Amino acid sequence: MNLIIVQPQEISGNELVLTDQRARHIHKVLRCQPGDNLRVGVLNGPMGTGRIMSMALGRVHLRLRLDTAPPPPPALDLILALPRPVMLKRILVQAVTLGVNHIYLINANRVEKSFFSSALVAEGGWREFLFKGLEQAVDTRIPGLSIHQRFRPFIEDILPPVLARRGGGRIVAHPDGGAVIPAGGGSRAFLAIGPEGGWVDFEIEKFQAAGFGVFSPGPRIMRVDTAVPALMAQVNMALAQAVRQPECV
Amino acid sequence: MNLIIVQPQEISGNELVLTDQRARHIHKVLRCQPGDNLRVGVLNGPMGTGRIMSMALGRVHLRLRLDTAPPPPPALDLILALPRPVMLKRILVQAVTLGVNHIYLINANRVEKSFFSSALVAEGGWREFLFKGLEQAVDTRIPGLSIHQRFRPFIEDILPPVLARRGGGRIVAHPDGGAVIPAGGGSRAFLAIGPEGGWVDFEIEKFQAAGFGVFSPGPRIMRVDTAVPALMAQVNMALAQAVRQPECV
Repeated sequence: MNLIIVQPQEISGNELVLTDQRARHIHKVLRCQPGDNLRVGVLNGPMGTGRIMSMALGRVHLRLRLDTAPPPPPALDLILALPRPVMLKRILVQAVTLGVNHIYLINANRVEKSFFSSALVAEGGWREFLFKGLEQAVDTRIPGLSIHQRFRPFIEDILPPVLARRGGGRIVAHPDGGAVIPAGGGSRAFLAIGPEGGWVDFEIEKFQAAGFGVFSPGPRIMRVDTAVPALMAQVNMALAQAVRQPECV
Repeated sequence: MNLIIVQPQEISGNELVLTDQRARHIHKVLRCQPGDNLRVGVLNGPMGTGRIMSMALGRVHLRLRLDTAPPPPPALDLILALPRPVMLKRILVQAVTLGVNHIYLINANRVEKSFFSSALVAEGGWREFLFKGLEQAVDTRIPGLSIHQRFRPFIEDILPPVLARRGGGRIVAHPDGGAVIPAGGGSRAFLAIGPEGGWVDFEIEKFQAAGFGVFSPGPRIMRVDTAVPALMAQVNMALAQAVRQPECV
């Protein structure tokens, strides 16, 4: 935990008292003493330091100095065919660590339908893994996450207005694609990553109809928990290059 | 398991009989039947298909057709400050999945010394995770792996002749670096990734003295199991771009 995240309503003036697992973490894992400074951030707000004024078992009193803006909003939206729950936990942390604006967990032909009824997906269990990613990355902006149990309404009805509103490149990863990321020259992008076994032809056609360019990460078959950080990092790099190297005029 | 890997001496003519966990995997996980074809590869050799001629409990007889070359040798050598064993397992699979020529597991100031005496590191337990990566990626070239318990002899004595022999870019990841990967315009590179908490100044100075350029992946703090696939993917992309876009003459 590189950042203690707090809710705005937990702060009174510049004072913060923690009595839950964050207090225990400060005691037992970080092994802090009164007088130590910790990185603290307000959910969807500023970050800074918290100076430990006093500590007792299960209770930590901090005085805050919130003078730092969180990192810039992430450039990427991730569309992910729902992976198996044990893998989804790790992927959510990784995606938020690398920076993601919104995560769309969607159905696809090769997604096992039972994954949608897991507690992680159906009962909001995913939320704690977004926080873990923010705590790791030192960021306070929590990404959006939405779950779409039917592929066709998602790609035909839900996605197009979002694409129109947010703009940016549209990239779907698939073995039959080109070797260059179709980032579109913008500073933002939507990246779609398929299930184990890949997208089926119908799904690729639907992505293409929605304006997505197909990118092939190469001949090596990746598990989804390797593909997500690898492809996110590559698209982020392509976006940064597009910003640094505008087209000749 | 996307590829069954066999040793050359297991094959007799074009015939292969498996009686170990690979046979059980074909039975129980892949649920194959006689007549089915499987992807088979010879360690450090060709790949192709194996047709199941007969199956009995714990015994599978395959007829091989090995007519495919493995993917091109990976462009990257990875120098990795030894992570904690549970994380190392996952990282080895990810690195081999993405493609790595040689993995140097090295000491650093912020590496816990006890990690070197784990069974995974000290007793060759790492080897099965290289195989898992090859089985995932569909590759037969097993990367080299070496373990270096002392940082200074590694960077001063062991690494320089390797760098001179193999050539290519030299990149060390560190927050104080530049935003562009110093890939050096070549088609190969050495990539060095530090421990949790990062490299110390002395280590960065030693890498720089060995010709490494410092690259910063940005302000977000990554765990090593996110940093390895993200940075490997970015360096691979930079190398591919260097090959596609030679400097103007």
